[in-house]
Amino acid sequence: MKLFLTLTTLILLMTTAPAADAPYRHVVFFKFKDSASPEQVQSIEKAFIELAKKVETVKDFEWGTNVSPENLNDGFTHCFFVTFADKAGLETYLPHPAHSEFVSKLKPILDKVCVLDYTAR
Amino acid sequence: MKLFLTLTTLILLMTTAPAADAPYRHVVFFKFKDSASPEQVQSIEKAFIELAKKVETVKDFEWGTNVSPENLNDGFTHCFFVTFADKAGLETYLPHPAHSEFVSKLKPILDKVCVLDYTAR
Repeated sequence: MKLFLTLTTLILLMTTAPAADAPYRHVVFFKFKDSASPEQVQSIEKAFIELAKKVETVKDFEWGTNVSPENLNDGFTHCFFVTFADKAGLETYLPHPAHSEFVSKLKPILDKVCVLDYTAR
Repeated sequence: MKLFLTLTTLILLMTTAPAADAPYRHVVFFKFKDSASPEQVQSIEKAFIELAKKVETVKDFEWGTNVSPENLNDGFTHCFFVTFADKAGLETYLPHPAHSEFVSKLKPILDKVCVLDYTAR
């Protein structure tokens, strides 16, 4: 019985856990301050695109502005979707000088941020 | 001069707007109620996976639970990342009976949700 339960748990883990080579996703939502000008916002969009090019552990990058008709975005207007091969990729990215520089540029015009990372299943 | 400005605007739009065939992303964050049991949460995970299979306009689907070390997830624990070919795909999905059924199952144990859609650039 014990063996059966262990096997069941193992099978469950194998079917629900992410695959070993599953990409690591870093999902970032921004809401800018009302005082931020369109030019300032556009400058951050460009800076994020450049940041993604500067950090070699970034494997894929895309972004866009909210077009959801559901009105469940809690004020967030921008999504940046950054892919790493694994968590180590993010751990290289976060303390990278290019990332720190980007954050310094962003902070004065940022109202709020929400970040959720997951390993894709 | 006017023609020059119009051309400049046009070029800017062409380089910053999403491509016509760019995928439409539907990003969903969930925070479940503290009272929700692990079994209830797992049942919603499975129900979302099934939902994605039931609606034919869903072109791609992945999900995962938060593993970000940044603590900027504002309590959200789950991300579901749904891809449609275009906004029409979402417009088929939202009122779909399978989606309504899923939402009915979800609501009693959901604390909060955040949804942001974008056309990938």
